[in-house]
Amino acid sequence: MQRHQIGILGATGMVGQRFIQLLEQHPWFEVVWLAASDKSSGKRYGDAVKWKLDTPLPAHIAQMQISPATPESAPKIIFAALDSDIARELEPKFAAAGCAVISNSSAFRMQQDVPLVIPEVNGDHLPLLEKQTWRKQSGGYLVTNPNCSAIGLVLALKPLEERFGLDAIFVSTMQAVSGAGYPGVPSLDILGNVVPYIKSEEEKMQEETLKLLGCLKDDRVQPLEAKISAHCNRVPVEDGHTESVSIKLRKPATREQILAAWQEFRPLAGQNLPTAPAQPIEFIPADDRPQPRLDRMRGHGMAAVVGRLRPCTLFDWKFTVLSHNTIRGAAGAALLNAELLATLGKLEPAAVPA
Amino acid sequence: MQRHQIGILGATGMVGQRFIQLLEQHPWFEVVWLAASDKSSGKRYGDAVKWKLDTPLPAHIAQMQISPATPESAPKIIFAALDSDIARELEPKFAAAGCAVISNSSAFRMQQDVPLVIPEVNGDHLPLLEKQTWRKQSGGYLVTNPNCSAIGLVLALKPLEERFGLDAIFVSTMQAVSGAGYPGVPSLDILGNVVPYIKSEEEKMQEETLKLLGCLKDDRVQPLEAKISAHCNRVPVEDGHTESVSIKLRKPATREQILAAWQEFRPLAGQNLPTAPAQPIEFIPADDRPQPRLDRMRGHGMAAVVGRLRPCTLFDWKFTVLSHNTIRGAAGAALLNAELLATLGKLEPAAVPA
Amino acid sequence: MQRHQIGILGATGMVGQRFIQLLEQHPWFEVVWLAASDKSSGKRYGDAVKWKLDTPLPAHIAQMQISPATPESAPKIIFAALDSDIARELEPKFAAAGCAVISNSSAFRMQQDVPLVIPEVNGDHLPLLEKQTWRKQSGGYLVTNPNCSAIGLVLALKPLEERFGLDAIFVSTMQAVSGAGYPGVPSLDILGNVVPYIKSEEEKMQEETLKLLGCLKDDRVQPLEAKISAHCNRVPVEDGHTESVSIKLRKPATREQILAAWQEFRPLAGQNLPTAPAQPIEFIPADDRPQPRLDRMRGHGMAAVVGRLRPCTLFDWKFTVLSHNTIRGAAGAALLNAELLATLGKLEPAAVPA
Amino acid sequence: MQRHQIGILGATGMVGQRFIQLLEQHPWFEVVWLAASDKSSGKRYGDAVKWKLDTPLPAHIAQMQISPATPESAPKIIFAALDSDIARELEPKFAAAGCAVISNSSAFRMQQDVPLVIPEVNGDHLPLLEKQTWRKQSGGYLVTNPNCSAIGLVLALKPLEERFGLDAIFVSTMQAVSGAGYPGVPSLDILGNVVPYIKSEEEKMQEETLKLLGCLKDDRVQPLEAKISAHCNRVPVEDGHTESVSIKLRKPATREQILAAWQEFRPLAGQNLPTAPAQPIEFIPADDRPQPRLDRMRGHGMAAVVGRLRPCTLFDWKFTVLSHNTIRGAAGAALLNAELLATLGKLEPAAVPA
Repeated sequence: MQRHQIGILGATGMVGQRFIQLLEQHPWFEVVWLAASDKSSGKRYGDAVKWKLDTPLPAHIAQMQISPATPESAPKIIFAALDSDIARELEPKFAAAGCAVISNSSAFRMQQDVPLVIPEVNGDHLPLLEKQTWRKQSGGYLVTNPNCSAIGLVLALKPLEERFGLDAIFVSTMQAVSGAGYPGVPSLDILGNVVPYIKSEEEKMQEETLKLLGCLKDDRVQPLEAKISAHCNRVPVEDGHTESVSIKLRKPATREQILAAWQEFRPLAGQNLPTAPAQPIEFIPADDRPQPRLDRMRGHGMAAVVGRLRPCTLFDWKFTVLSHNTIRGAAGAALLNAELLATLGKLEPAAVPA
Repeated sequence: MQRHQIGILGATGMVGQRFIQLLEQHPWFEVVWLAASDKSSGKRYGDAVKWKLDTPLPAHIAQMQISPATPESAPKIIFAALDSDIARELEPKFAAAGCAVISNSSAFRMQQDVPLVIPEVNGDHLPLLEKQTWRKQSGGYLVTNPNCSAIGLVLALKPLEERFGLDAIFVSTMQAVSGAGYPGVPSLDILGNVVPYIKSEEEKMQEETLKLLGCLKDDRVQPLEAKISAHCNRVPVEDGHTESVSIKLRKPATREQILAAWQEFRPLAGQNLPTAPAQPIEFIPADDRPQPRLDRMRGHGMAAVVGRLRPCTLFDWKFTVLSHNTIRGAAGAALLNAELLATLGKLEPAAVPA
Repeated sequence: MQRHQIGILGATGMVGQRFIQLLEQHPWFEVVWLAASDKSSGKRYGDAVKWKLDTPLPAHIAQMQISPATPESAPKIIFAALDSDIARELEPKFAAAGCAVISNSSAFRMQQDVPLVIPEVNGDHLPLLEKQTWRKQSGGYLVTNPNCSAIGLVLALKPLEERFGLDAIFVSTMQAVSGAGYPGVPSLDILGNVVPYIKSEEEKMQEETLKLLGCLKDDRVQPLEAKISAHCNRVPVEDGHTESVSIKLRKPATREQILAAWQEFRPLAGQNLPTAPAQPIEFIPADDRPQPRLDRMRGHGMAAVVGRLRPCTLFDWKFTVLSHNTIRGAAGAALLNAELLATLGKLEPAAVPA
Repeated sequence: MQRHQIGILGATGMVGQRFIQLLEQHPWFEVVWLAASDKSSGKRYGDAVKWKLDTPLPAHIAQMQISPATPESAPKIIFAALDSDIARELEPKFAAAGCAVISNSSAFRMQQDVPLVIPEVNGDHLPLLEKQTWRKQSGGYLVTNPNCSAIGLVLALKPLEERFGLDAIFVSTMQAVSGAGYPGVPSLDILGNVVPYIKSEEEKMQEETLKLLGCLKDDRVQPLEAKISAHCNRVPVEDGHTESVSIKLRKPATREQILAAWQEFRPLAGQNLPTAPAQPIEFIPADDRPQPRLDRMRGHGMAAVVGRLRPCTLFDWKFTVLSHNTIRGAAGAALLNAELLATLGKLEPAAVPA
């Protein structure tokens, strides 16, 4: 099988680096094009990037020349890892030029005709892309994945919403510094410290969660009707967002029923998406888990890891959820979206997977 | 004025060290007796302690000999900084021997005739001590301060409860490692990590908060009738507990009214207690505060520092509160209790402050 | 091929856990026996261990019952990960009972008839084991690997000693907390801090380095005649020891000659030892490397990573070396020793590798 | 006594903030002028600064308006806390305009007619300033203090050089992140990590140490004739540089002689400089000290703290030295220089201290 040729917009940033790491030896996708800011354009990738991952930069990627961030030279499948304001400007250009833009940016997530998708949760929102003007005119489109803080939460909530209904959600996060990119959070701000604020994060987390758990009806996503309140905090952790959650359900649920809902949640089973974890939600029974340093790589960094399920004195249940913010929460999320789009035949015709 | 002679039970631990630091040059109290575990008894304090504070161990304290942990040789005022199971055994012995035991331990906090007190919040619960059998028989008694995670929260809540009534409280903590004593949390557990569990902490935080905010009626404390749910987490911070809080009020309150309630909350004004902060609740308007490393020493470590007041999409308001866990949350809390007891004439007769 | 059956002494500690992790799916060795302290004996391993690695505890290992730490029930190949004082008592018992004891402990490293070995450096010291009384009487023997701080240094020095001769060595270490085991270093001692002292570490580092670089002559190891001075420090890093090194050579060497010596150092090439890294010494040309978080996993944690080669204003050259302290510096070191012993036919006869 | 009116160049940076903190309530100096980069000019200081110290920004300073960084409006005494390339451009302008420029920058430290001074070490180098052209033409001059990594080392070495002579120095540093200013070191680079490189730091440390320990002869500083080699590393510590040092002396010295040299080193005794520590070199006998978190504030952050004195197997003695990098290593260093200049009558005539 020939692999899909893909490009990466924002290839030198933290999420761009994760794309490169995760795409190395990917069975369906092949990186053929890298773009970054103007000052990097024309350089060898190896010279332009400050590689911050703990696996070596692949030699053949290091040799690639960075292209200008314009659609002319680009392949028809683009993973976009851009800052929001740049995404707002560039992503529409690529979609208008006929590219499938699989974006990690927040710029268009809440736009009415843009699917905001976690494959295990709401892959059925993808048809929304057919409503995009770009799609009709050029074949191009834009699909997004949620904020890194929302993904683990929504994965943990989805099977509970399905079986018991969700009425209210309280969540307080302890987020890793890699979520802010590089250079990102200054060490003087976070060593031995907590910063109880991440700009716009609470708003994103709240509205994206309800859109992700909503229903596609009459070409629109009806957000879930539930109340949600988020507190977002930064802590001195490299990777992995940990979240304390309390939920109020519409129907009573026992501990066993909740554990079963999580355990049995395998909506992608049988689809063989290369990046999909076998067990999207992993429950750890130990008292003091999940912990980011020990558990963020579960399911190759793609699992939502839950623990500490216990009754809530205020709502019904409380628990802790953890997910890897630059894998499941960013590059891996977009990659899984692309894999689902591939199986739906929505990537370029030349490269349908076997 | 002659100073009260006091003793410290558990003098070598983290809280014991804070007592020594805070009592150095205290105008009302003088440390004359130090006790610790059997293996330290008889040693010079300077040889027995692993001093972990960033001010030097006072030379005259270093020279003191550690006494056996029995009331025979002890003065009549005891600050107790013992682990809970040891406190359960030792504190009653000292109270029965006629000592005023000002305890930081959790062992007896919830016992019906034991005052659990924050002077700014519920100093009026102190008369409960007169009901203690020890008091009647020997003059001794036991007074406690709350868990380090409850103190900052309750300070921030008290003026809101007074003015608007509290219906429901969500709190999610990010607690410093010094709260676990020494050696306490292993570095392998917390470097670059979050531990979403502290044994019994959520239960303590919940029940102590309601007792502290309750009313003394007919020789009993009626706990506040409100719902509270706590999530307790450990983070890699040396000192200072940070807490994300959402509250539901009984009466509507505007932002200005809440800020005014905090600003005007000075219940100890005019009492001149040496350890009382001039402003018990300090509000910082910057978006990203309070932060433990920058703000824990406000009010010499005795203030509850609040920030990020904003509407809650689920309840009424949300905010962040920070307090220093081994000063306001432990040694300073006990010290302030003792100062209030002194002004009430409940410490030994020989040493009434002017 | 049938795999060698091996046992692990000290299986619940940090190094014991690494043994289990590294032996999972090892082509030559199979874990059949686990022993730990008396209080763990008889328990399921999964119940006794506080598993601290970021890969899950293998399920079949979790089910194994912990045996008493006596040779009666043990297999004939033992990986020992014991504290030094316990090793001093137990390891001789196993050797006397006919076991090949591959030890990570410091207890016997400097004993005259005990090989202290890094396979790439001085595998030719192994015949020393034939001089052990245990060997003569029962077939058992004791082989050791060096301290975690010495291994990376000695790997980096060996090719330089071979080609240019070493006259003097300065080394100052910045060591990870995992080197102290679990619970090990209290978080209050190391968060945002440096501890400029590790008990006995400088002495071990100095004497082991000279023994490792020495020659086996007349049934004795003649230590290298060179001067060495070590400063050992603990820093808030989870894994990976970083060391600043200055060296004085006996013959002049250019930068290119030193880089070539490192690059060409592959003494185990062609032996196909499963744990041996293809490139034992990896040089990184970037100004600011090696760094523990980014580079400790080079060669699956078995490489010595060097960088910052530059002239020394005091001696001849200076550089930085990094190695993973619980893989190359402990469990992986012992495992590689065992693999080399296997190819030499010195493990039990029943299991000669193909 | 009227206080000297002083200005701060680079007032919003980390060192500028320390100047403000240390000058609050200074008996001799009064801050009347603040300058920063063009983008801050004209703003209230409180609006322009990201205050990162753990004492509150003084209210009257917060209200001050930031002036343009030109000498026209400036007072005649300037504390300069500028980046090196900006210092190179601006400091001469202020000196030429008649200002006493007390600089923390590296730009002119090694220039032949610029005194590089630690008052306790080489205050006798100050007359060099009379050779400056600026001095002759306008009365203005430039005086510098050394790099933050050199100061603690040189303080510890000075009395040993005086009594025993220094032949060779090996030093390996573990430097705090605050030394790089704000935002400075990205958290992704240093959390759980070591960076074995700080640009130009080793060169500065080496050459400045020899100039500081040199002699002023014939209007020139003859650098000390000794060999020195520095390894500079960044570690995840907020404040306080820790250094491992080995030294070779010209005359033999016993442990007692070295301790006495440190203990008796009080060259400023009797001068009553407000910022001078009573004991410039503090020795801590405990095995595992000094440590940055516990000891950096000795002497109000102005002491060099030494420990671990022990024989060196390669040179004569080795020890650890610690000093606070933004107090003794930066703002406090400049302040002490200014105090010494004041007593020498080299500050403006209107404000000679009593």
